[in-house]
Amino acid sequence: MTRTIKLAVLPGDGIGPEVIEQANRVLDAVLAGGDVVLDRTEFKLGAERFLATGETLPEAEQAEIAQHDAILFGAVGGVPGDPRLKDANIERGLLLKLRFDFDHYANVRPCTLFPGVESTLKHPGDVDFLVVREGTEGPYAGNGGRLRAGTPAEVATEVSVNTAFGIERVVRYAFEVASRRPRQKVTWVHKTNVLVHAGATWQRIVQAVAAEYPDIAVDYMHVDAATIFMVQDPSRFDVIVTDNLFGDILTDLAGAIGGGIGLAASGNINPDGTFPSMFEPVHGSAPDIAGQQKADPTAAILSAALMLDHLGLSAEGDRVRDAVRADLAVRGASTRSTTEVGSAIIDRIAAR
Amino acid sequence: MTRTIKLAVLPGDGIGPEVIEQANRVLDAVLAGGDVVLDRTEFKLGAERFLATGETLPEAEQAEIAQHDAILFGAVGGVPGDPRLKDANIERGLLLKLRFDFDHYANVRPCTLFPGVESTLKHPGDVDFLVVREGTEGPYAGNGGRLRAGTPAEVATEVSVNTAFGIERVVRYAFEVASRRPRQKVTWVHKTNVLVHAGATWQRIVQAVAAEYPDIAVDYMHVDAATIFMVQDPSRFDVIVTDNLFGDILTDLAGAIGGGIGLAASGNINPDGTFPSMFEPVHGSAPDIAGQQKADPTAAILSAALMLDHLGLSAEGDRVRDAVRADLAVRGASTRSTTEVGSAIIDRIAAR
Ligand SMILES: CC(C)[C@H](C(=O)O)[C@@H](O)C(=O)O
Ligand SMILES: CC(C)[C@H](C(=O)O)[C@@H](O)C(=O)O
Repeated sequence: MTRTIKLAVLPGDGIGPEVIEQANRVLDAVLAGGDVVLDRTEFKLGAERFLATGETLPEAEQAEIAQHDAILFGAVGGVPGDPRLKDANIERGLLLKLRFDFDHYANVRPCTLFPGVESTLKHPGDVDFLVVREGTEGPYAGNGGRLRAGTPAEVATEVSVNTAFGIERVVRYAFEVASRRPRQKVTWVHKTNVLVHAGATWQRIVQAVAAEYPDIAVDYMHVDAATIFMVQDPSRFDVIVTDNLFGDILTDLAGAIGGGIGLAASGNINPDGTFPSMFEPVHGSAPDIAGQQKADPTAAILSAALMLDHLGLSAEGDRVRDAVRADLAVRGASTRSTTEVGSAIIDRIAAR
Repeated sequence: MTRTIKLAVLPGDGIGPEVIEQANRVLDAVLAGGDVVLDRTEFKLGAERFLATGETLPEAEQAEIAQHDAILFGAVGGVPGDPRLKDANIERGLLLKLRFDFDHYANVRPCTLFPGVESTLKHPGDVDFLVVREGTEGPYAGNGGRLRAGTPAEVATEVSVNTAFGIERVVRYAFEVASRRPRQKVTWVHKTNVLVHAGATWQRIVQAVAAEYPDIAVDYMHVDAATIFMVQDPSRFDVIVTDNLFGDILTDLAGAIGGGIGLAASGNINPDGTFPSMFEPVHGSAPDIAGQQKADPTAAILSAALMLDHLGLSAEGDRVRDAVRADLAVRGASTRSTTEVGSAIIDRIAAR
């Protein structure tokens, strides 16, 4: 009996289409001959679409995307400074809107320094941690505004909104994930000494959830200190759980020390399964190198592997990761094209 | 004619007193035989004082501190998790209160990788930049609160408050500083694609101020991307200007890549001169190693050098930096005591 998975593909802008093309080829390769069939629908959304039609995410399309089992997302964003995009905010109107409307409250970003991959750090040690970033509230809520805009008396506010409801579910998710990992450790990151209101709520909830997981070691770090540990001793981390903005910052840093942002994968997970989860490389659309076959598709491919895990196909996910790992081990400073990297990974999948 | 400088010394907690002791010895050494006299008053403030008396920053003491020409600050904070400090927030009540009340709007944090100092990065390149962090608003404003605290319906908000007034003065300060540096470059850092309200205000003001400095090159980076550049190519930075929270995070990271937080100095500057400026190492009170002569006093000593600059004594500031530089060049992985490091730097000052 075949299982059909409805996959919404949103390649987006810049290098998005190139890297998603390779992720799709890899998915086809790893599923070939099996009983899982991908039924793909492509949605052309992003800056390019906005420039052509003025649309960011039409309601009907969003409703259609919601009918899928998962979303594979490339990258979004036009050329920086493009005057035609001045009043558009594709990131908020498309990417963040999907994360919020589809309740992607667990933004999961693994950071593994694969053997053979050069780190920017002199002594990286054994880097293998996972950041669980809250995805639906905090400073990303969009609350706030500008008063007297354009005058010397202008005031702008940004309101970080944090709920016990929103914090508890993501913290619980992080503890669940940690309980299935060998090291059994959760580090929560905030800035409780300054952001005392949200900090107190986070602290109360982490403590309450931690009490339900007596076998998991818990520690706390201020976000500023966490950046220091991340470049001085990243092997101390197992699972990190943190808010939306701190998670954004820490996962780019994690990407950089874990062999570069070209390898950093992510899943925007709706653990309840009410909405499709969305998988995307952490990197952006990099319009400066778009269409030149220069982009590294590995992050998109590893994101597709996370998607396989999420869909209950973790054996297939592992096969993809093993192929990536084998390729990275011999990759060195090679300058293969986007397609060549995809093909090399596919060859390794096929060879097994 | 002698010039008397009234110096308020706040050694604080943990390793604060040890490192400030060395900074004071260095100040005495570099001013010895000159016509500048330091008239010091010590204020015992911090967690220890709070535990002894319940006081954080009594009004009368603050008024007395305000009468000084400058403040030398160690570090603040008790042992993490100390139950007696549960409801205290010495950071907010002392350190941040001084920054806010004394209008320290330019928090200046240089990052230089001195010759001979090992970086955590494999290829650090020529690291020599300066972060100008806004010090009196943003997410540090303290606005926000908790609703239904302790219940499942709890909501906590943190309101970042950003004013044209506050942004303009710190941005202008950053451009002024950049105009006196050889590379003539300002990078402003924010998260304009998500924090659209404050981001728009920052952008408008940076553009307006930049127009007055046509010789200075300006670029923009999202804070997440800035962490990547900081570990992959820090030599691209000259002057960074950013908000209070992003500045907090980026300067710890900068400290880590610039040879460690034990070398990171800072000045909380009130450029208007209405209130005394305050100089402090970026590091914390590190209660775990306090009183053991293990702390590196270099950050405190370099902070004292920034203080000398600020007081119009930049020749003396340079002499301190030269002595530090000479010591660092041969320091290696030596394990000298706090006092020994101070003495080594003093010897080099005296030898010139
Ligand atoms: C593009 C942007 C809105 C997004 C974010 O801030 O979450 C990105 O940086 C990320 O980390 O996925
Ligand atoms: C102690 C803390 C309040 C402080 C800050 O967040 O500003 C510290 O981290 C710093 O960078 O000086």
